Amino acid sequence: MNKTQKEIALVDFDPEKNQILELWFNDSVEFGHGCRVSIRIKNVLCFYRSEYQEIAIFETEKLGRMLVLDGITMLTEFDEFAYHEMIVHVPLLVHPNPTRILVIGGGDGGTVRELLKHPEVEQIHVCELDREVVKACRKYLPSLAFSFDDPKVQVFYEDGAKFVEENPETYDIIIVDSTDPIGPGQILFQRKFYEDMKKSLKSDGIVVTQCESLYLHKHVIGGVASFAREIYPKLGYYCSLVPTYPSGLIGFFFCSNKYDPIDDLSEERASKLPGLKYYTPRLHRASFVLPKFGEEILQTSS
Amino acid sequence: MNKTQKEIALVDFDPEKNQILELWFNDSVEFGHGCRVSIRIKNVLCFYRSEYQEIAIFETEKLGRMLVLDGITMLTEFDEFAYHEMIVHVPLLVHPNPTRILVIGGGDGGTVRELLKHPEVEQIHVCELDREVVKACRKYLPSLAFSFDDPKVQVFYEDGAKFVEENPETYDIIIVDSTDPIGPGQILFQRKFYEDMKKSLKSDGIVVTQCESLYLHKHVIGGVASFAREIYPKLGYYCSLVPTYPSGLIGFFFCSNKYDPIDDLSEERASKLPGLKYYTPRLHRASFVLPKFGEEILQTSS
Repeated sequence: MNKTQKEIALVDFDPEKNQILELWFNDSVEFGHGCRVSIRIKNVLCFYRSEYQEIAIFETEKLGRMLVLDGITMLTEFDEFAYHEMIVHVPLLVHPNPTRILVIGGGDGGTVRELLKHPEVEQIHVCELDREVVKACRKYLPSLAFSFDDPKVQVFYEDGAKFVEENPETYDIIIVDSTDPIGPGQILFQRKFYEDMKKSLKSDGIVVTQCESLYLHKHVIGGVASFAREIYPKLGYYCSLVPTYPSGLIGFFFCSNKYDPIDDLSEERASKLPGLKYYTPRLHRASFVLPKFGEEILQTSS
Repeated sequence: MNKTQKEIALVDFDPEKNQILELWFNDSVEFGHGCRVSIRIKNVLCFYRSEYQEIAIFETEKLGRMLVLDGITMLTEFDEFAYHEMIVHVPLLVHPNPTRILVIGGGDGGTVRELLKHPEVEQIHVCELDREVVKACRKYLPSLAFSFDDPKVQVFYEDGAKFVEENPETYDIIIVDSTDPIGPGQILFQRKFYEDMKKSLKSDGIVVTQCESLYLHKHVIGGVASFAREIYPKLGYYCSLVPTYPSGLIGFFFCSNKYDPIDDLSEERASKLPGLKYYTPRLHRASFVLPKFGEEILQTSS
């Protein structure tokens, strides 16, 4: 009986017994750069297609478990802290009283886990398109998805772009913890969505959005900057170092109606956050300082 | 006639004609992390073994040319600026009058190219173990190796560790632009070498050394920090973002007898440097700010 390569990988592959085969996950994001990150896999924990995407969770050889959506690395347990701490603590420590938070995407639970470290937070709404992502993460990534059990958290399985339209003047902070601008995530990188988020914020609200790598997605970043600065009086872009992402780098837009990402940082509240591995107030400030070519991407888009 | 995979790659591979084969270079540095960077290759420009190592220069699909030594990526034309600007301009703009410079390693010429942007520099000694690296780079990487033609530059094909022993009180700045602590590069990560470099510096001299990734080489970095701080009154560690290196990150030790890497930076001289893509004085300062786990690596080694 012949089996395809995928069938062998999924059914017969046992790295404990097998000395000559190696199973590698190749991130499908080459973005036309002919450069990719590959990660050695020990076991396939789940691998199936939901209504929206192909969901895979792997046990890696050395980096803990990893979540892959449509062939793109979402996180590994090895370095997810660098992403989740920076997408959360930067806006939360700038806003003086962040009580109501909306997370768009974030179905793995890592962002919620970090949000729950802030005593000011009273209510977290998570708007995740795909129920199956939450289900898979609850089963295989409990170190992140345990956070969904907190009574402050409510999950809505809806379209994030619609959700913000339907909830005006509601949130202190909106965090867009999304996939890349391909397929269902595309709309989250467009002007209308940034305008609708502004309406869904309270008047002094803050939005932070995942927005790719300075080295690899200059046009995406420059494009978002060009309209976001027209919508939000305070705009910044900052980076975090995430080795298992393509180019080892991920960036975020900080969009605010009122607060300055540097001047309004509360060091006092920062000093009380438990269990940090990446974030410090010094690093908060340093993360907004970009390489020269990065400054130019942000400037020339104006 | 059967050919090995390597022979096919080197002799018959023509990506212009071939629609079904892809040639990828896999960086051999996994460092036990089961994670690697792969780069798509269009052509093999040179690939041979010198007395010291296997030297390869590839034409990549999208990242320009790349230099590989013993299976490890040294540089691509796409992002080498991030490495070379940071290994050079940080120490050169802290020292008030850097006239005599020693580069250990650096056979590709990128470090010398950046050094020559500083009008204060009168003499550059390059001590590169392997004559063949310089030869190959002169032929295939002229955008870096053209710098060897400058009359200020003199290349010595010698052992760097011995060279510093034999040249006491000579240099304002020593830059160690080395390979990883494997094989011939190993000695460059040891205490004696740091002591000998101190003797080879003038009394107010500065040493900067390539020292790996915070995510992947915690023990190497912590180990060097533990003895380097006993030798040099001013010690710092700073990072640069280089996507084609494993983890997308590379760090440097700044070791100085006198000058502080932040307080003694000359913004005025920085503003006159031509052709920068990465370095800015703001980024100079920000690059010394490490993630929390990085601070801990440096601190716990004390």
